[in-house]
Amino acid sequence: MKKISVAILGATGSVGQRFIELLLKHPYFELTELGASGRSAGKKYSDAVNWIMQTPLSPEFGDLVVKECIPNFESKIVFSGLDSSVAGEIETQFAEAGYFVISNARNHRFDADVPLLIPEINFEHLELLRVQNYKGGIVTNPNCSTIGLAMALKPLHDNFGLEAVNVVTMQAISGAGYPGIASLDILDNVVPFIGGEEEKLETEPAKILGRISSAKIELANFKISAQCNRVPVIDGHTECIQVKLKSKPTMEEIKKVWREFKSEPQELKLPSAPINPIHYFEEDKYPQAKIHRNLENGMGVAIGRLRECSLFDYKFTILSHNTIRGAAGGTILIAELMQAKGYFDR
Amino acid sequence: MKKISVAILGATGSVGQRFIELLLKHPYFELTELGASGRSAGKKYSDAVNWIMQTPLSPEFGDLVVKECIPNFESKIVFSGLDSSVAGEIETQFAEAGYFVISNARNHRFDADVPLLIPEINFEHLELLRVQNYKGGIVTNPNCSTIGLAMALKPLHDNFGLEAVNVVTMQAISGAGYPGIASLDILDNVVPFIGGEEEKLETEPAKILGRISSAKIELANFKISAQCNRVPVIDGHTECIQVKLKSKPTMEEIKKVWREFKSEPQELKLPSAPINPIHYFEEDKYPQAKIHRNLENGMGVAIGRLRECSLFDYKFTILSHNTIRGAAGGTILIAELMQAKGYFDR
Amino acid sequence: MKKISVAILGATGSVGQRFIELLLKHPYFELTELGASGRSAGKKYSDAVNWIMQTPLSPEFGDLVVKECIPNFESKIVFSGLDSSVAGEIETQFAEAGYFVISNARNHRFDADVPLLIPEINFEHLELLRVQNYKGGIVTNPNCSTIGLAMALKPLHDNFGLEAVNVVTMQAISGAGYPGIASLDILDNVVPFIGGEEEKLETEPAKILGRISSAKIELANFKISAQCNRVPVIDGHTECIQVKLKSKPTMEEIKKVWREFKSEPQELKLPSAPINPIHYFEEDKYPQAKIHRNLENGMGVAIGRLRECSLFDYKFTILSHNTIRGAAGGTILIAELMQAKGYFDR
Amino acid sequence: MKKISVAILGATGSVGQRFIELLLKHPYFELTELGASGRSAGKKYSDAVNWIMQTPLSPEFGDLVVKECIPNFESKIVFSGLDSSVAGEIETQFAEAGYFVISNARNHRFDADVPLLIPEINFEHLELLRVQNYKGGIVTNPNCSTIGLAMALKPLHDNFGLEAVNVVTMQAISGAGYPGIASLDILDNVVPFIGGEEEKLETEPAKILGRISSAKIELANFKISAQCNRVPVIDGHTECIQVKLKSKPTMEEIKKVWREFKSEPQELKLPSAPINPIHYFEEDKYPQAKIHRNLENGMGVAIGRLRECSLFDYKFTILSHNTIRGAAGGTILIAELMQAKGYFDR
Repeated sequence: MKKISVAILGATGSVGQRFIELLLKHPYFELTELGASGRSAGKKYSDAVNWIMQTPLSPEFGDLVVKECIPNFESKIVFSGLDSSVAGEIETQFAEAGYFVISNARNHRFDADVPLLIPEINFEHLELLRVQNYKGGIVTNPNCSTIGLAMALKPLHDNFGLEAVNVVTMQAISGAGYPGIASLDILDNVVPFIGGEEEKLETEPAKILGRISSAKIELANFKISAQCNRVPVIDGHTECIQVKLKSKPTMEEIKKVWREFKSEPQELKLPSAPINPIHYFEEDKYPQAKIHRNLENGMGVAIGRLRECSLFDYKFTILSHNTIRGAAGGTILIAELMQAKGYFDR
Repeated sequence: MKKISVAILGATGSVGQRFIELLLKHPYFELTELGASGRSAGKKYSDAVNWIMQTPLSPEFGDLVVKECIPNFESKIVFSGLDSSVAGEIETQFAEAGYFVISNARNHRFDADVPLLIPEINFEHLELLRVQNYKGGIVTNPNCSTIGLAMALKPLHDNFGLEAVNVVTMQAISGAGYPGIASLDILDNVVPFIGGEEEKLETEPAKILGRISSAKIELANFKISAQCNRVPVIDGHTECIQVKLKSKPTMEEIKKVWREFKSEPQELKLPSAPINPIHYFEEDKYPQAKIHRNLENGMGVAIGRLRECSLFDYKFTILSHNTIRGAAGGTILIAELMQAKGYFDR
Repeated sequence: MKKISVAILGATGSVGQRFIELLLKHPYFELTELGASGRSAGKKYSDAVNWIMQTPLSPEFGDLVVKECIPNFESKIVFSGLDSSVAGEIETQFAEAGYFVISNARNHRFDADVPLLIPEINFEHLELLRVQNYKGGIVTNPNCSTIGLAMALKPLHDNFGLEAVNVVTMQAISGAGYPGIASLDILDNVVPFIGGEEEKLETEPAKILGRISSAKIELANFKISAQCNRVPVIDGHTECIQVKLKSKPTMEEIKKVWREFKSEPQELKLPSAPINPIHYFEEDKYPQAKIHRNLENGMGVAIGRLRECSLFDYKFTILSHNTIRGAAGGTILIAELMQAKGYFDR
Repeated sequence: MKKISVAILGATGSVGQRFIELLLKHPYFELTELGASGRSAGKKYSDAVNWIMQTPLSPEFGDLVVKECIPNFESKIVFSGLDSSVAGEIETQFAEAGYFVISNARNHRFDADVPLLIPEINFEHLELLRVQNYKGGIVTNPNCSTIGLAMALKPLHDNFGLEAVNVVTMQAISGAGYPGIASLDILDNVVPFIGGEEEKLETEPAKILGRISSAKIELANFKISAQCNRVPVIDGHTECIQVKLKSKPTMEEIKKVWREFKSEPQELKLPSAPINPIHYFEEDKYPQAKIHRNLENGMGVAIGRLRECSLFDYKFTILSHNTIRGAAGGTILIAELMQAKGYFDR
C-alpha cells in the first residue's frame, strides 16, 4: 500500500511533538510537512523546536523545513495541534481549501456539523462530514480528560443507562502544553483549577455519547459535574468517577461490559487501535499513572477500584494517557478510521 | 505560670517529630520525656531518630534519652504519636495508670466514651471524660484528612443542615509516616488508594459533628462518600468537596459563615489556636498546598473555588496541613483546651 | 528608631517577592514603594503579581500601587530585583539621581568601582562607594551559587591559602525566577546547563575574596572550575566542592575555622545576620536542601561531608538558600550593614 | 535456534523486575525460573511481587511459582539481582553446583578470578573463567554509576591515556532498589551521600580498564575521586566528569573517538548491544535523564557539554540508564556475549 502524505500544524508544540513521535514508521501515513508559527517558519525543525519528548527526535523529521500554517501544503490530510488562540481560523482556512483537518484543538468541537470523535464510541458521527460546507472537512478529537471518561462511560451507558456522572480529575502537566506550568507552581503542589477544563468535561461527553440521525446529533441525556486539578505527574490523567445508572447492575456485570468492550477500530484492526480499549485491574492500588499510561502503547484506558457508593451507585478510578490516547494518538486513530472507511478517497 | 511537664509516645515517628518541633518553647507545656519502641529506648534521641523535619532538631530535645513506652513516666500528660499496631494497648495502659493520653492514633477513636475531638467543633465532647473508667483519660484527634473536612462542614451543618457530602482527596506523603511511601511509588505518580482512609473519612465526621447529651454522642445524620488518593506533595491535603444542604443558601451566605467561624479556642486565646480557623480565598487558583499549608502556623483551613454544582448544591476545594492541624498541632490544641478548662487539675 | 523608607524595583519577580516577604516587620526599614514594568505599573500589587511565596502576601503590601521604575521614588534606598535585561540602565539612572541602589542583578557586579559584597567576607569593599561618580551609589550582591561557595572558602583562604577550587552545583528551580523552568523540563530530570552560571561562579569569588587598597580591588589569586546543574528542588543550592590549599590543615582545623567564623555583621548584630554564618554537620547524609535551607532563617550556610580527596586536598558539600542568603536576604543584609556604618547618612 | 533456559535470583527486587521486563521475548534466552527469598517462595510471582516497572507485568511470568534460591534450578544460566546481604554466599553455592552466575551484586566484583565486565570494554577478561575453581562460574556487572563513567573513559584511555578523573554524580532513586529511598527523604531534596558508592566508583574503573595477561588483571593506573549524590529522578544517572590526559587532544578528536567507539558486542551484533555505545550531543542543555535514558533501548551512554577545564584538561557530562545499561541490561549483554563466545557450551 502506498503511504498517504500527511502534515502537522502546530508542530513545535507538545501535541505536535507527540504527533511526530507517533507518526514515525506509521503504516498508513507518511509525515512530510510541518507547519508552525511565523517565528519558526523557514527554520530546520530541529532548530525551531525545543524537543521535550522522552525519545530523541528522529533526524528524518528534524531536517524538515518548517512551513507557515497557510493552505499551500502538498498533503491533503492535516493533523492540527494548534493552540486554540489561532486554531479556529487556520483550520477553517484549510478545510475551505480542500484539506481534511483532524484537530486536537477545541475551537470547532461544538460546531453542529463537526464530529467530536472517539473512534471506539461514535464512529457513526463521521456522517456529519457529508453535510459540512467545506471543500475538505474538519473532525475534532475531544479534550484529553474527556476521552478516558467517555470510554469508561460508553459501555455503562449502552448497557445500563447513565443518569448522573461525577468526576474529579488529577491531571498531568503535559496537558498544559509547553512551556505550560511553571515548575515553581507545581512541584510539591496541587493546583485546584484548570481554565475551561471543567466546562469541557461537563459538555463534551453528551455530544460524544449522543445519537446521530439525519445528520444531526441528539445529546445524550444525563447530568454531569466535574472538578479538575493539576498534579505533579508528567503524563497520565487520573480521574475519580461516580455514576448513577438507570438499571443498577452488579459489579461483575460492569467489569464484564468493560472488559468485553470492543468496537469499529478493533474490527478494522486499525494500526493505532488498542486490542482492548479498556483494561480493568483488581488490585486496590491500581490504576496508576506511572504504570498504566503506556498500556496498549498509550491507547488503552485503565480502570480499577470499582466499589459501591452511598451517594451514587458506583465509584471507580480511571487512568489514560493524556497526550497519546487523549491527544495525538486519538487524533491519528481518527485519521486511520477515515482512511479505512474511504473518507479520504472522495 | 509554671509549665506543665509533658511526654511523647512514639517520638521517633513523623508525628512524634512534629510534636517535638511544635512543643519547642510552648507557653503551657514543657517537653521532658520521649518514649519510643524498645529498639530506640536507652539511646540519645538524636541518635535514635532519623530526623526529617524541615527545621533542625533542637539540641534541648536531641539530648534526651529515649524511654520505653511503659507507664513509668514523670509527666502526667502524654501525647501519643504511636503506630496503630501498638497504640491501642499502650494508650490503655497509660490511661489506666492515671495518665492523660491525647492521641493521634486511630485505635480508641470510636470507643463510646472517648472524645474524637476538634476543639473548634465539639469541645463539649470532653464531658465524656467524666464517664471514662480510666484513672487518667483518653482523648483522640481525628484522622488527618477528616479534620479539614469537618472544619469546612461545621458552619454549613450548623447554619444550613447537611444532607450529603462527597469528597475526593489528594493527600500528602507525610500522612503515611516515615519511611512511608517509597519514592519509586509516588514520584511522577498518583496512587488511588490509601488503606483504611476512606472508611475513616466516611465515619469520623458523623461522630465529630454529633450532639452530646447525658454523656452520649448522637451521630450527625448525613450521607458521605469518600475517595482517597496519594499525590507527590510533601505536606498539605487537598480535598474536592460537594455538599447537599437542607436549606440552600447563597454563595455569599456560605462564605460569610466560613469567614466568621470562631469557637472556644479563639475565645480562650489558646496558644495554638488560629485566629481564624477558616480562610476563604476568591482566586480561582487557590487554595494550594505549597502556599496555604502554613496558614495560621499550619492550624488554619484554606477554602476556595466555591461554585454551584449540578449534582449537589455546591462544590469547593479545601486545603489543610495534615501533620500540623491534621495531627500533632491539632492534638496539642486539645491539650491546651483541656488545660484551660481545668481537666488536668482533677 | 525611626524606620527608613525603602523601595523595591522588580517587585513582581521572584526575587522581588522574597524582598517583600523578608521586609515585613523589618526593624530598620519600612517598605513603602514597589516598582515594576510598565505592564504592572498603576495596578494594585496584589493584582499585578502572581504570588508564589510559601507564605501568603501581606495585605499591607498587596494594597500598594505599583510604580514604573523611573527615579521619582520617595525612598532613597532601593532594592533591585530587576531582570538583567533592564537592570543595568535603570540602576544607573537611579544611582545618578541620588538613590542608593542595592542590587541583586548581575549587570554592575564587575564595574571597577562597584562593591560585589557579602557582608561577612568583604565589608571593607564598601569603601569603593567613595570613588563612585554617582550622586547616590550602587552596591551589588553576588550570584546565588557564589555566595555559599565564597562563604565556605573565606575561612580557608584566610587561614590556609587557596590554590585551586573545583565546584559542581545542583541548583534549585527558584534560582531561575518565575516562570523560570517549565515543569516538563525539570520534573524527573536534571538539566546539566545554566546559561552564564559557570562563568559567574568562576569569576565572582576572586573579586569577593580580593584585597582592597587605595579604592582598588586586587583579585584573589587561585584557580577555579565550575559545572552547574539544575535539579528538581524548590529552594536551596547544593554544591560539591574540592579545594587545594597552600598549607594543608587537618580536618579538625578546617571544621574549627568554619565553626568559629564570625565577622562584622555578627559584631554589629545586624537584624538579618545569622548568629553563625557557617554550620558544620558531622552526619554523612547532611547537608540537605529540605532540612538546612532555612538554617538561621535562610541566612546560614550548611557544610558537611568533609573528607580527604586524592586529587585535591579536601572535598566537602555545602548548602545555602539561594533566594534568601543567595538573593533577597543577602541584599537586605548589605543594606543593614550600610545603615549601621552610616553610609545612608551622607 | 533453540532458546536457552535462564533463571533469575532476587526476582522480586527492582533489578529482578528489570530482568523480567528485558527478558520478555529475548531471542537467545527463555526465562523459566524465578528465585526469591523464603518469604516469597511458593507464591505465584504476581502475588509475591510489588511490581513497579512502567510496563505491566506479563502474565507469562506473573504465573510462575517463585522458588527458593537454592541450587536446584533446571536452568544452568542464572542472573542474580540479589541483595548484597545474601548474594555472596548464594552465588558461590550456585557456581560451585555448576551454574553460570551472571551477577549484578557487588560481592564478587573484586575476587581476583572474577571478571568485572562491560562487554564493550573488557570482553577479554572473560578468560578469567578458565582459572575459576567453580564447577560453573561467576561473572559480575559493575556498579550502576561506574558503567557510564567507564564507557566514557575507555576511548580516552586507549587513545590519549588517563592521568586523573574527577566525577560528581547525580543518581536516580531506582538505583537504591525497592522500597529504597523514602519519598519524604528525596522529594524537593538532594541527598549528598550514598553508602559505599564513592568507594565503588573510585575502585571499579581501574579493574575494568585494566589489562589481562596470564589470567591476571593489571589495574589501570590513574587517580580518581568521586562524590555521589541522590536526586529526585526516577531513572538515569547524570555525572559531571573532569579528566587529565597524558597527551591532550583537541575537542574534535575526543568527540571523534567517542562517536566511533564500537567493540565486540557491536561486531557480534548481540541482541542487547547498542548500535553506538556512545552518543555525543552538541546542544548545551544535553544530556538529560528524561530524554536520553532510553537511548538505544537504555543501553547507550549520552555525553555532552565537552569543554576545556582550568583545573584538568576537559570537563563533560554523561547520562546512562542505571537499571538497564547500569544493571539488568548490562548483565544480559554479558550473557549474550558469553553465549556468542561459546562459554555456555563447555
